[in-house]
Amino acid sequence: MKQSHLFTRTRREAPADEVAKNAQLLVRAGYIHKEMAGVYSYLPLGLRTLNNIIRIIREEMNAIGGQEIVMTALQDKALWERTDRWDDAKVDNWFKTKLAVGGDTGLAITHEEPLTRIMAAHISSYRDLPAMVYQFQNKFRNELRAKSGVMRGKEFMMKDLYSFAKSSEEHEAQYAATRAAYIKVFKRFGLAKRTYPTFASGGVFADFSEEFQTVSEAGEDTIYVDEEKHVAVNKEVLTDEALAKLGLDRARLVEKKAIESGNIFHLGTRFSEALGLAFTAEDGTKKPVIMGSYGIGVTRMVGILTEVFADEKGLVWPAEVAPFAMHIVSLGKKGDEISKTADALYEDLVKAGVEVLYDDRELRAGEKFADSDLLGIPRRIVVGKDAVATGDFEVVERVTGEVAKIPRAELFS
Amino acid sequence: MKQSHLFTRTRREAPADEVAKNAQLLVRAGYIHKEMAGVYSYLPLGLRTLNNIIRIIREEMNAIGGQEIVMTALQDKALWERTDRWDDAKVDNWFKTKLAVGGDTGLAITHEEPLTRIMAAHISSYRDLPAMVYQFQNKFRNELRAKSGVMRGKEFMMKDLYSFAKSSEEHEAQYAATRAAYIKVFKRFGLAKRTYPTFASGGVFADFSEEFQTVSEAGEDTIYVDEEKHVAVNKEVLTDEALAKLGLDRARLVEKKAIESGNIFHLGTRFSEALGLAFTAEDGTKKPVIMGSYGIGVTRMVGILTEVFADEKGLVWPAEVAPFAMHIVSLGKKGDEISKTADALYEDLVKAGVEVLYDDRELRAGEKFADSDLLGIPRRIVVGKDAVATGDFEVVERVTGEVAKIPRAELFS
Repeated sequence: MKQSHLFTRTRREAPADEVAKNAQLLVRAGYIHKEMAGVYSYLPLGLRTLNNIIRIIREEMNAIGGQEIVMTALQDKALWERTDRWDDAKVDNWFKTKLAVGGDTGLAITHEEPLTRIMAAHISSYRDLPAMVYQFQNKFRNELRAKSGVMRGKEFMMKDLYSFAKSSEEHEAQYAATRAAYIKVFKRFGLAKRTYPTFASGGVFADFSEEFQTVSEAGEDTIYVDEEKHVAVNKEVLTDEALAKLGLDRARLVEKKAIESGNIFHLGTRFSEALGLAFTAEDGTKKPVIMGSYGIGVTRMVGILTEVFADEKGLVWPAEVAPFAMHIVSLGKKGDEISKTADALYEDLVKAGVEVLYDDRELRAGEKFADSDLLGIPRRIVVGKDAVATGDFEVVERVTGEVAKIPRAELFS
Repeated sequence: MKQSHLFTRTRREAPADEVAKNAQLLVRAGYIHKEMAGVYSYLPLGLRTLNNIIRIIREEMNAIGGQEIVMTALQDKALWERTDRWDDAKVDNWFKTKLAVGGDTGLAITHEEPLTRIMAAHISSYRDLPAMVYQFQNKFRNELRAKSGVMRGKEFMMKDLYSFAKSSEEHEAQYAATRAAYIKVFKRFGLAKRTYPTFASGGVFADFSEEFQTVSEAGEDTIYVDEEKHVAVNKEVLTDEALAKLGLDRARLVEKKAIESGNIFHLGTRFSEALGLAFTAEDGTKKPVIMGSYGIGVTRMVGILTEVFADEKGLVWPAEVAPFAMHIVSLGKKGDEISKTADALYEDLVKAGVEVLYDDRELRAGEKFADSDLLGIPRRIVVGKDAVATGDFEVVERVTGEVAKIPRAELFS
């Protein structure tokens, strides 16, 4: 894409109404637009980034046999009453509204209830199990505070996968497969090292629930990390009794700030029993389906990656997530040799299937480099007099700042 | 995908609570699930179909220079008050709700307001224009009646594109480009012949607005078609005066039922003036940006295609929209030669990049054929004794019912 065509503009100053580093940088770089506190639109560069995050997660969920669907924001009150999660006294962050035809509806805070009902319409026999179903869908939560930018929104996208099993063994296998897929996802985000499987509270069907916590100064959680075992314990369950159960030694734990990047839950039969999701077993008996749920915050991930990788110059994206792989910065003026060289390189790279942003604007070099740093595309290719004279291009790696002269042909490899 | 893995099941009977043919068939085939009246989830086959519709529209919007973004459902009341579209007395189908922090919010009925504000943050000079920006996004409308299945929902997906121009000439060029792109889109949906550019009311900045109306008995609109010119007039503007202006002859017009499949509007400067979207012209003066808006109902299109193409046996999808290109139906039993032949064909087609659904279930042939007809995938490949013996496969075209024996190699071409 030519940058002269891209409608978004960068800003030098951080917006006054944003306190989170992620929102400040993403707004400055033109990736997002703030509609209201905790509500953000995704502009072309932001949407490309988001779509790469979605693609990575989708590939890993498909690889373990996940079937993709998409549910709805509007929710049926009667359904949520059956699991006792409609009442504001029980769940306090619903957005609720009235139907013109009469009655109430609410905006999905999560989707266990509607999916359990969907599955009840399709699953009846042990032959129909196991199944894993997922979606990318917005959730709505009526948050009081929204000071963490895209990391905690009132409207945000999650990937949520739900597993359905006919036995505990089958459920454990699904749980293990999804857990392993999550580790792959975080690896592809470049977050493997700083993301810890973390024991936390909330385990109704086990002693603990499991979260994935990514270490970041912007995190709202405190975790205690065992570096060697690459696991952590959430502060909320840090007791001697818990540590004994987990086989962890308090002396080896290091306190860190972290942000929850994923969570995985054993749901047991809570939802299937309440909503009538049962199957006929091989022996002819009726049994409730055993469920699990597995979430990753998709828009939150945009924020986490920003918090973790951005530097004083701007955004820095891991290769698989970046909105473009390369950023050509031309120092030429319309019609001169430099511009022609840059044009040709751009066209050839696009033909070769490389995702390229091409800064073809007539601005001072310093301004263009500052913009390029702010946008955070992994490799910058500078097209100046040198490139025209030698056929070699100056390539700057955004992460390291390393500069190299690279022959044209090698840019395509 | 193997059908034994697909979690959805077909139903023989139409759901009692659906009156629209599209919803009846889509629910029976397991494409969608009804959450509430006018609110539908998309299950694996439905989502694949929806994603193909999205892909086609996206390709055509990108081809005319559209830049994709995604805005939000939650809307800022203050913004909509500035265009006088918040008040229920003016716009009567908002879903409104309260923010926990205090104040009101509503669910987007459309997105002119938020996008105009976004553009005001990025556009300041004539150099920033023209621009065309689009999204695929859910809209929410608090409809009283919801009897048309996925064709008129309370929560539904639209592609909406907005154009921004510095002059009327530039706007007219954008309008013409988008109009031409729409015609291409309808052609790819297989709807070119029965979709008419239709003059309608609602043109604030012109005598008429333009709709695209697709002829269907399920349509809620009445249009008058001039077959030769391939244009139509909506009943709401059918006057002698209007016909004279349009150069149409009442005697040649044929009355038809139709459903609105797209609309294109000249917005003039209504939104840009109200919301401060202005640019500095080459002569240094400040001018409001001239806008247009262009919608296609994406989930509605699933319904239109069903209404138009389905037959008494079930769904029938145009090739580019179908959830899979081929449906292999094996008549074998686990481990026999027929199953092995079907397995090998499936694996080879998948390797060759063909989208295949493979009915590997052990059911009676009649049941499998009925399911296959109901699902509506364009080509059915039957694997029975014959195929094993001769190496030729029986191929049934879903649209025509034509049967042919085709050598294996030709299935890959």
